[in-house]
Formats: sequence, C-alpha cells, structure tokens
Amino acid sequence: MGVKVDVMDDFYKLLHPCLAVFVVSASAGGRPNVMTCAWNMPVSEDPPMVAVALGEESYTGELIRESREFTVNIPGERLLKALWVCGTRSGRRADKFRLAGLTPRPARRVKPPIIDECMGHLECRLSKSVEAGECTLFIGEVLEAYASEEFFRNGVWDVRAASLPLHLGGRLFAIPSRVVKP
Amino acid sequence: MGVKVDVMDDFYKLLHPCLAVFVVSASAGGRPNVMTCAWNMPVSEDPPMVAVALGEESYTGELIRESREFTVNIPGERLLKALWVCGTRSGRRADKFRLAGLTPRPARRVKPPIIDECMGHLECRLSKSVEAGECTLFIGEVLEAYASEEFFRNGVWDVRAASLPLHLGGRLFAIPSRVVKP
Repeated sequence: MGVKVDVMDDFYKLLHPCLAVFVVSASAGGRPNVMTCAWNMPVSEDPPMVAVALGEESYTGELIRESREFTVNIPGERLLKALWVCGTRSGRRADKFRLAGLTPRPARRVKPPIIDECMGHLECRLSKSVEAGECTLFIGEVLEAYASEEFFRNGVWDVRAASLPLHLGGRLFAIPSRVVKP
Repeated sequence: MGVKVDVMDDFYKLLHPCLAVFVVSASAGGRPNVMTCAWNMPVSEDPPMVAVALGEESYTGELIRESREFTVNIPGERLLKALWVCGTRSGRRADKFRLAGLTPRPARRVKPPIIDECMGHLECRLSKSVEAGECTLFIGEVLEAYASEEFFRNGVWDVRAASLPLHLGGRLFAIPSRVVKP
C-alpha cells in the first residue's frame, strides 16, 4: 500500500470528510445562534442520541450548557457559503443568521429554532457533556427528527438530489454522488 | 423547503453518510479482532483525540476495555466487501481478518495491529469511555498517525484517488468525488 508517511499534524483529517451541519442554540433571552459543525455523529439508535464536539471557547457550547437544548440542521450544497460564514465567525459578536442569510423557524419541542433552508432537522435535549481535550462533547437525546421527503427517502439521503457538503479540510468540501453496494 | 415529514425511525441516517473505518483491537493473548465502524469522529486537535461509538454487546468494546488500545484504519472502495463482512459478523465466533482477507501488520506503538491494505492509520490509547444510550463512546488519544502519500496529500484526502466509502444506510455506501469551495 505504497509509502506511509507521518501525518500527525493533520491526523484529524484522516477521519474526514465529515458531514457539515448547522448547530443552533439560543440564549436565555431567546436570541438564536448558529454555528457550523463537522464533528458530529449518531451515538445510539434506541434511545436516539447524537454527539457534537465543540471547542471549549465556543459560544454555542456556552448556550447549550445554559439552555440544555439545541437543533441540528442538515444543509445542501447551495448553503455552502452560509456553512463557511457560520464556521468562521463567532456569534458573540455577530448575528450569523443575518450574515449568512438563514431563516430561523420555531422548532416543534425545543426553544432553539431550526433553519428553514435546511433539508433535515434534529431537535435535541442535552443528556450529558464530556470533556475531551480541547473540545466538549455534547451528547443529546433526539426528541424530533424530520426531513424534506424530496431529499430523504426510504430512510436514506438521495445523495444526488441532496448534494450534501462534507468537510474535507480548510476551504475544501467533498460532495458524495456515487452510490455503491458491497 | 418542501414537505418535511417525521423520520424518527431513521433519525441517525440524517447524520450519514459517515466514513466507514476498521477498528482493530487485540485480546490479552494477542489475537487481533477487526470491526467496521461508521460512528467515528475526531474530538480534539490538540491533544489529538478521536471517538468511536460501539454497541454495548460489541466484542471490540470488550477488548478495548481490557487492553485500552486500538487502531483505526481507513480503507478505499476496493475493501467494500471486507467492510461489509467486518460489520456484520462477530469476532467472538470468527477470525474476521481471515474471513475478510485482511492482513494484520504490527503497529508502531500499540499492541493491536494495523491493517496493511488500508490507506491511513491511527494508533490510539483509551483516554475515557462514556455510556451513551445503547452504545459506549471510546475516546482515544492518538499516538501515531500515518497514511499513504499517494492518497493523502498536503493534509487532505485526494478523494478521487482514495475513493473513500461512507456508510449511507443498510447496504448502501456513498463515494465522494466532487470537491467544492465556498
């Protein structure tokens, strides 16, 4: 398998590409904040749970600690610029919904809103948080999950229609299009 | 954004496709075991850490609890059948290296081997484990990371050359090929 070289400086990108999603939180006063997060995954099917890893300085992390609720919103490729904006600016100083041209809509069961332009949504209640190096893992119970039926069909994404951006590294995102079976 | 329907039964596949990797562990006697895992992600860049979510019945989980070490191995599309075999059989009853035609090679710093046919490797020491619903999250410190330079260049996968299988759901895997920038 060719020459294998040390890539310790870039180790985390060995586990990329990772689906880029928007995590939405809200302040006690109800002001919503949105950030881009590529370090996310399901962690349990029953009970339904997901985990997102956020930097210790993250404003979103601070809001989730306070309100114990968040939503996860899955965008298509046409929201690539919004993903970039919401991954490189802090909500402490900017209204990223406005900056990125995203529309907050009330969620069904939690206070933080969902993002109307996204194709899929998870409404989560914080179950536990775990320190892991420079990040905190927020593990949430999924209360509601819904998606646009034109993109998510028979329990899977229609990858050609959905055109999901996965973060590869830096400014690079990879889009899956070919589907294969073992 | 069209009609949004409840997809609670399939909620976890909203966060797919997820990179499918091989997690390798070893028994006290040195016998290696390999399983396929799509629920994995980096959780910290410095210190370098990754997390994998394994079912509570997992034999790999049992071995990692005992030995506190594991390797993560990233395959290309040509190992799709091996991914399927190692994701659907238990190492309690079968030698999955032999079944899947995979070659164990000594790792640099941990006892569990790496898989020679894979393009990238992470050698990990268990830092902590966290219960999350029906799974356990194993959070490991990355001791070594190396990759084939023909597929992983300038700190990112060359997605066309690497042809990385990402699990979409059931028997379906998605291969990213197109790269875009915001």
